[in-house]
Amino acid sequence: MDLDAILKEIQEEIQKYFTKGKLPNYIPMLAQADESDFAMSIITLDGEEYHIGCSNKKFSIQSISKVFTFTLALEHYSKELYKRVGHEPSGDPFNSLVQLEYESGIPRNPFINAGAIVTTDCLASIFEDNAFNEILDFMKKVSGDQNISFDKNIFISELGHGFQNFALINLMKSYHNIKNPIDDVIQIYFKQCSIMMTTKQLAHSMLFLANHGKDPLTNESILNESKAKRINSLMLTCGHYDASGDFAYKVGLPGKSGVGGGIVAVVPKKMAISVYSPKLNVYGNSLIGTKALELFTTKTGLSIF
Amino acid sequence: MDLDAILKEIQEEIQKYFTKGKLPNYIPMLAQADESDFAMSIITLDGEEYHIGCSNKKFSIQSISKVFTFTLALEHYSKELYKRVGHEPSGDPFNSLVQLEYESGIPRNPFINAGAIVTTDCLASIFEDNAFNEILDFMKKVSGDQNISFDKNIFISELGHGFQNFALINLMKSYHNIKNPIDDVIQIYFKQCSIMMTTKQLAHSMLFLANHGKDPLTNESILNESKAKRINSLMLTCGHYDASGDFAYKVGLPGKSGVGGGIVAVVPKKMAISVYSPKLNVYGNSLIGTKALELFTTKTGLSIF
Amino acid sequence: MDLDAILKEIQEEIQKYFTKGKLPNYIPMLAQADESDFAMSIITLDGEEYHIGCSNKKFSIQSISKVFTFTLALEHYSKELYKRVGHEPSGDPFNSLVQLEYESGIPRNPFINAGAIVTTDCLASIFEDNAFNEILDFMKKVSGDQNISFDKNIFISELGHGFQNFALINLMKSYHNIKNPIDDVIQIYFKQCSIMMTTKQLAHSMLFLANHGKDPLTNESILNESKAKRINSLMLTCGHYDASGDFAYKVGLPGKSGVGGGIVAVVPKKMAISVYSPKLNVYGNSLIGTKALELFTTKTGLSIF
Amino acid sequence: MDLDAILKEIQEEIQKYFTKGKLPNYIPMLAQADESDFAMSIITLDGEEYHIGCSNKKFSIQSISKVFTFTLALEHYSKELYKRVGHEPSGDPFNSLVQLEYESGIPRNPFINAGAIVTTDCLASIFEDNAFNEILDFMKKVSGDQNISFDKNIFISELGHGFQNFALINLMKSYHNIKNPIDDVIQIYFKQCSIMMTTKQLAHSMLFLANHGKDPLTNESILNESKAKRINSLMLTCGHYDASGDFAYKVGLPGKSGVGGGIVAVVPKKMAISVYSPKLNVYGNSLIGTKALELFTTKTGLSIF
Repeated sequence: MDLDAILKEIQEEIQKYFTKGKLPNYIPMLAQADESDFAMSIITLDGEEYHIGCSNKKFSIQSISKVFTFTLALEHYSKELYKRVGHEPSGDPFNSLVQLEYESGIPRNPFINAGAIVTTDCLASIFEDNAFNEILDFMKKVSGDQNISFDKNIFISELGHGFQNFALINLMKSYHNIKNPIDDVIQIYFKQCSIMMTTKQLAHSMLFLANHGKDPLTNESILNESKAKRINSLMLTCGHYDASGDFAYKVGLPGKSGVGGGIVAVVPKKMAISVYSPKLNVYGNSLIGTKALELFTTKTGLSIF
Repeated sequence: MDLDAILKEIQEEIQKYFTKGKLPNYIPMLAQADESDFAMSIITLDGEEYHIGCSNKKFSIQSISKVFTFTLALEHYSKELYKRVGHEPSGDPFNSLVQLEYESGIPRNPFINAGAIVTTDCLASIFEDNAFNEILDFMKKVSGDQNISFDKNIFISELGHGFQNFALINLMKSYHNIKNPIDDVIQIYFKQCSIMMTTKQLAHSMLFLANHGKDPLTNESILNESKAKRINSLMLTCGHYDASGDFAYKVGLPGKSGVGGGIVAVVPKKMAISVYSPKLNVYGNSLIGTKALELFTTKTGLSIF
Repeated sequence: MDLDAILKEIQEEIQKYFTKGKLPNYIPMLAQADESDFAMSIITLDGEEYHIGCSNKKFSIQSISKVFTFTLALEHYSKELYKRVGHEPSGDPFNSLVQLEYESGIPRNPFINAGAIVTTDCLASIFEDNAFNEILDFMKKVSGDQNISFDKNIFISELGHGFQNFALINLMKSYHNIKNPIDDVIQIYFKQCSIMMTTKQLAHSMLFLANHGKDPLTNESILNESKAKRINSLMLTCGHYDASGDFAYKVGLPGKSGVGGGIVAVVPKKMAISVYSPKLNVYGNSLIGTKALELFTTKTGLSIF
Repeated sequence: MDLDAILKEIQEEIQKYFTKGKLPNYIPMLAQADESDFAMSIITLDGEEYHIGCSNKKFSIQSISKVFTFTLALEHYSKELYKRVGHEPSGDPFNSLVQLEYESGIPRNPFINAGAIVTTDCLASIFEDNAFNEILDFMKKVSGDQNISFDKNIFISELGHGFQNFALINLMKSYHNIKNPIDDVIQIYFKQCSIMMTTKQLAHSMLFLANHGKDPLTNESILNESKAKRINSLMLTCGHYDASGDFAYKVGLPGKSGVGGGIVAVVPKKMAISVYSPKLNVYGNSLIGTKALELFTTKTGLSIF
């Protein structure tokens, strides 16, 4: 399989979609992205890399961070975490309060905002004041790259406009499913969303999930096999909000998207993939990113189904 | 009709209910009320007064404040207010986020928490920094009593435990239905809930609503007739959260309850009534207060139906 | 008060609204009504009658029948009825299944379709095969007119298009809140909706509710005072589906509307009113009928508030 | 991998769970199953078979039929089918009307009851009076076994107790998402649920989905590769009602359960599996069947993640 050729074909075939989709407007800083940006990176378990487009350009990872904070929390805290956040698809948009209210403050899964906020609250309980640094260190470890930080302007922009997330965290607090002070947790949460990474770094960061929990390049164990498989299953069933079924249907790979325009995905036992393009489809996922991944599994036959 | 005798009968007949109901526990300060307290006050349009029990004891008016802030806002701001808050029963408990989310941040009516917060936001737009003082002055005017203030400890207690109200206001802000800074609005809101009044003061304060908008004792016009009638209709259909139908069914008078244990009601063109007893029924309304009003309309035949 | 003059004024002032509203299209037979029809009838407790427009024209009473079947069931069956149907506003459109599903098959009140179907099921339990005849006889008694029947074509039209009502009754059957065979109950229900009456007959039929349960012209007791008041309260809080608050707000009288274009209302202790005009507003209530009643209470000051 | 040994281990390890779970009680006929029954069948793409327990005992396939009717409809009718039924997890129990009402009669996916009923309606449009025979013939073809029929008693039992399904189909009819007469469609639907099969027959029937649409034993193409993969993805995200995430999380294979106690699953490109045990867990899926499949993927490492 000539992955370089396939990436070139994908790049050509997605050109016609650049007129479609929209930049997110609810966070002013994200609305300033360059609409013509596109990058795609593939890293195989034996360390071969394939990149196309602006694969060294940093963008804010937003909800992709949920995969990593959940991994980190699961490692330290799995028993309590399983009680405080579910693992079922939500069937509702990503910031729905309805489900939370009907289900007493227990989010459906860790990949909707409410679930990720509970996960961050767990990390705040474990690491206390050092929680965000631990998250950043974890990102550096899994990406094999020390050059990772968050963007202060995006962080401040989110803090000033994240009313729905404030609503979610207050509602969960009223159900006693947030243990730390709201302001502390929400700050860590918005910081993790504001982490800036390239598709190259993100593809590397997902390798341990493609390899049953172990980084194939360093051989370091990040998570045990059973937990790694469960995260993949969660990405497949819940990774794209209320378009998760559609993504599973059309792409057929475990993956996670962020409103910053990034998507990560894994082909179990084979490779990790990351794609970036900032304009979003109606579900809040990168329009071109989704198309690129669809083309990828069609061309390679590498769906898990 | 011998109202003194009727009040005495009511006081006797409610004795058996003092074992029932529960103090609210979500605001610690309210949980400290004296469970055996009971007071009832009636003031007729021609100024006759009838009181029984601790009718000079102050308690926090809580949601009863919604009637007065809505009156004040309606006087200054009716056109915009009608767009930003509805006038239909909600069919949901008093702090439901579900309805707000399905209806784009427009609360069903001004007597559920969300609607009252929007109302307070309107007052913050009109009166700016002076908003709470204006509310307090309005209470002094309609009660004909300068001796009214809020309780700082209750206010602080609410501020520290009002997570659901913080969730509501943030959700509405995300739908652009809150114009002022969240912290400002919520502080005014919790202060108005913490206003301390007696049943005597509250009965006086409701006289203008029993008299088509005009205080019958001072002859001062508080609100025009059409608006006064509409507030009465709103109290009847929406004044008791999801037990509004039950209250209309059993009592048959426009009224408004608060979790502080107070209830106010009017007999149009005849009198205003206020009752206090701190233990609540399952709907969050004063259990004995509701019973007392039921007995009142049964004994007097003064239901509006 | 010159009610003849007031009716004339109303008739003039509503002319401009005839261009608005829409005939219902989900029941073909109802879509054939004459859009220009208008009638209004008032009968006072002492038997004075005031009519304007086509007050002898029959139209299908549709949901207005709910008031009468509930009265009849309450008389025979109140204890069980109170368990099987609530008395709270629903906050949802008239045929919502959502509320039923969340609340285990117990309808919120007897004036939404689900609640009226349960009421009819109660009548089927009491009167068995004779249930519809008993309903018809009751209508003849309260209207003081033997000339009342149902329209077979409308009945058949409803039976063939009433899929939402079939959905409701099946859902309630699954919760064991329907005791008789579905087909029997639904037939009685659609027959009662297809009863044809004039505004004159309907105004007469409501007199007992304006008079605390007793027909003021025959002095016959239809229902006891307490139950009669409760029906009035239910009409006020729940009589117009999710526009009940609006009707209470603007008209201020207990009333009940039907998609056939009729509305009935009472001024307690004074009079009964009926109005007819077939085009509906967005809530499914007669547009001109609602306007006419608004004008009526504005001109007479006869709101209950 | 010694699959015979693994099946034996599984059979031993599940013994302790026979005290748990409950037979379904809403369909009387299903409540008569033998609680101690257990069977598991595996057939690989090259035709090797492994069976344990009562693998020749027939049970009613119930919702497993949804996989096959959807396959059959997709083959003939995919364009229209995609418009009339979605492919997202529902996040609600299997017979929820709430979601249907909020989403205008379009079921979330073909594996909840509403979606399967729409699928059956499509088959009724294609095959008219012959629809159920076509379904039965399709089952015979994919199982390679002519000895398949439905159980009349179960069918009649379902018809007499399926009020929720009658509610669903009437609601969808009111949204014009059912084209054929309700009674015709519901009869075909209940017949397909009453089809009786063994785990052996079911395992064979799933082979084409494990093999990208082609029966590996006869080499006959049942469905094209892309559609076959999509059905697998749908089974993974939606195959187990509101426990679909849990099944994906713990088992990690595309699968579909039925309240008759059966579950089918595929290991893409490797094998098809079927398991039977009639007692259900709280989600309505075979308790022991689910456990057996969990043990299977743990022991073999054959999860798709």
